[in-house]
Amino acid sequence: MRQSQLFTKTRKEAPADEVAKNAQLLIRGGFIHKEMAGVYSFLPLGLRVLDKVEDIIRQEMNKVGGIEMRTAVFQSKEVWEKTNRWDDAVVDNWFKTKLKNGGEMGLSFTNEEAYSNILKQYISSYKDLPVYPYDFKSIFRNEARSKSGIMRGREFYWKALYSFSRDEAEHAVFYERMKTAYQNIFNAVGIGHRTYMTFASGGTFSKFSHEFQAITDAGEDSIHLDENSGIAVNKEVYNDEVITELGLRKENLVEKKAVEVGNIFSLGTKFSAPFDLKYKDKDGEDKLVIMGSYGIGLGRLIGTIVEILSDEKGIIWPASVAPFAVHLVDLAAGDNDVSAYAEKLYNELTACGIETLWDDRDARAGEKFADSDLIGIPLRVVISKKTLLEGKVEVKMRSTGGTTIVEKEKVFELARGCDTTTATK
Amino acid sequence: MRQSQLFTKTRKEAPADEVAKNAQLLIRGGFIHKEMAGVYSFLPLGLRVLDKVEDIIRQEMNKVGGIEMRTAVFQSKEVWEKTNRWDDAVVDNWFKTKLKNGGEMGLSFTNEEAYSNILKQYISSYKDLPVYPYDFKSIFRNEARSKSGIMRGREFYWKALYSFSRDEAEHAVFYERMKTAYQNIFNAVGIGHRTYMTFASGGTFSKFSHEFQAITDAGEDSIHLDENSGIAVNKEVYNDEVITELGLRKENLVEKKAVEVGNIFSLGTKFSAPFDLKYKDKDGEDKLVIMGSYGIGLGRLIGTIVEILSDEKGIIWPASVAPFAVHLVDLAAGDNDVSAYAEKLYNELTACGIETLWDDRDARAGEKFADSDLIGIPLRVVISKKTLLEGKVEVKMRSTGGTTIVEKEKVFELARGCDTTTATK
Repeated sequence: MRQSQLFTKTRKEAPADEVAKNAQLLIRGGFIHKEMAGVYSFLPLGLRVLDKVEDIIRQEMNKVGGIEMRTAVFQSKEVWEKTNRWDDAVVDNWFKTKLKNGGEMGLSFTNEEAYSNILKQYISSYKDLPVYPYDFKSIFRNEARSKSGIMRGREFYWKALYSFSRDEAEHAVFYERMKTAYQNIFNAVGIGHRTYMTFASGGTFSKFSHEFQAITDAGEDSIHLDENSGIAVNKEVYNDEVITELGLRKENLVEKKAVEVGNIFSLGTKFSAPFDLKYKDKDGEDKLVIMGSYGIGLGRLIGTIVEILSDEKGIIWPASVAPFAVHLVDLAAGDNDVSAYAEKLYNELTACGIETLWDDRDARAGEKFADSDLIGIPLRVVISKKTLLEGKVEVKMRSTGGTTIVEKEKVFELARGCDTTTATK
Repeated sequence: MRQSQLFTKTRKEAPADEVAKNAQLLIRGGFIHKEMAGVYSFLPLGLRVLDKVEDIIRQEMNKVGGIEMRTAVFQSKEVWEKTNRWDDAVVDNWFKTKLKNGGEMGLSFTNEEAYSNILKQYISSYKDLPVYPYDFKSIFRNEARSKSGIMRGREFYWKALYSFSRDEAEHAVFYERMKTAYQNIFNAVGIGHRTYMTFASGGTFSKFSHEFQAITDAGEDSIHLDENSGIAVNKEVYNDEVITELGLRKENLVEKKAVEVGNIFSLGTKFSAPFDLKYKDKDGEDKLVIMGSYGIGLGRLIGTIVEILSDEKGIIWPASVAPFAVHLVDLAAGDNDVSAYAEKLYNELTACGIETLWDDRDARAGEKFADSDLIGIPLRVVISKKTLLEGKVEVKMRSTGGTTIVEKEKVFELARGCDTTTATK
């Protein structure tokens, strides 16, 4: 895409009321627009990142046998009364609204009830199980505070998968597969090295749930991490008994601030019981379905990537989720030879399927470089009168800052190298 | 996909309160789930159709220079007060909700205000124009009645593009391109032959808007159609003066029931004025931006396809939006040779990128055929003991009902033939 056709522009300053680094950088770079506290629109650059994160998650969900659907935002009172979660006194972060001709409806804040209600229609025999439906959708939570940018939205976009299994043994096998899928996702989006599986509070049906916590000072959670084993314990369940049970040693644990970028949870029959979600087993006996839930907030994940992978100049996108693979910057400044060369290279890169943002604007070199650092595309390719005379181009990796002069052909190789994840799209 | 792993099942009956044919067939086929009147979830088969329709629309929007983004559902009072459309007395189909700590927010029922507000931040010079941002998102309208299935939802998924142009001349050129883009979309999804550009009421800035009306008895609109010219007039603006102005003759016009599957609208400065959305022209003079809006409801479009392309047995999907290209039905009934042959063909088709639903269930032939007719995949391939002995397969086109016995290789050719649109994905 030509940058002159991208309607967004970079900004020197974020809105004064925006205190979170992730939102400040994303707003300044033109990735998101703040509608109000905790509510952001995704501008073209931001949507490109969101789509890539979504595709990475989708691939992992499909690999474990997930089947995608899309549930409605509006939730009916009758369905939620089955689990006693309709009442605002029970769930304190509902957004509700009213039908013109009477009747209240809720806005999705989670999906257990909707899924249990739908699956109830289709599950009757052991042959119908297991199934692993999932959803990408907008979720709404009436949070009192919302100061963490896109890491804690009142409106946010998430993936939720629910597992419906015949028994605890079948559930346990899938649960382990999801641990691996989640690790794969956090590795793929570039924060695997900072993300730890963390024991957190469970519920009636399991002692622990598992959170994936990414270490950053911007986090709202505290975890106790054993860096050697890579195992962590959420502060909420941290005590001597738990430490012993998990085979950890207190002296090896370090307290860290972290963001919960994903969680997986064994639900047992908590939802299948109130929905009477049963199947007939091979002996004709009625049994309750065993459920699990597996969530990832995409905005929070993107916010965390920005918190971890950024410097004083801007964002440093991993290639897998970068809005473009190459930022082609021409310093033509009115020189037609330079523009023509840049256009030719832009067309060649695009024809090769290498996603390229071409800064074809009539602007000073310093401004173009500052914008490029802020937007954070992995590979920058600079075309100037000087490089043109040498018959070469200048390349710079955003992550290392190192600049080299290379043959034009080398750009294709470098771009592919830094674009391996998106290439699988 | 193996049908045994698709958790949905066909149903003999739709819910008693569902009166619309489109929703009845889509619910019975397992495409959608009715959450409440006017609110539907998309089940796996339905999401596959929705994704294909979305891709067709996206391609056409990108071709005319559209740039995709995704605006938030939550709308702020301050923004909507600028156009005096916040008040429920002015707009009668808002859904609103409240923040826990005070303050009201609205749920998107359209996007003019959100777009004008965002673009206001980025447009300052004639160099910034024209721009054509667009959005796929969930839209919420507090309709008093909702009895047309997915053709009129209280929650629905739509595409809206807004054009921001320098002047009326530039706007007019784009507006004409959008007419063509819309025709392309309705042709691609298989209802072009029944869809007519229709003159409808304009507004302050244009005498007419243009609707795309698809002829069906399920429609809530009435149009007067000249079948020779393919021009229609919405009943709301139908009078002698308009007929003369459009060069039509009363005696050639036939009144028809129709569904508005898309509309395009010149907005002039209706929104740019209250948002003070101006740019400096080449002479340094401030001018208001000229806007246009271009909408398509994807649920309504799918509902209309089902109303038009269905028979007493079920849906007849056009290949471009069908959930799968091939429905492979094995009549193994326990015969391992037949199952093995079906599995081999399934793997070959899938490896070739031909989307195939394999009915591998242990069910009677009659049940399998009835389900296949209801789900409506374009090409059915039947494997039985009889065809296996002949070394051939039986194929049936859902649209014509004609059955023939062919060589296995012919299936690949037929599937590609009926899958040309999806192949471009």
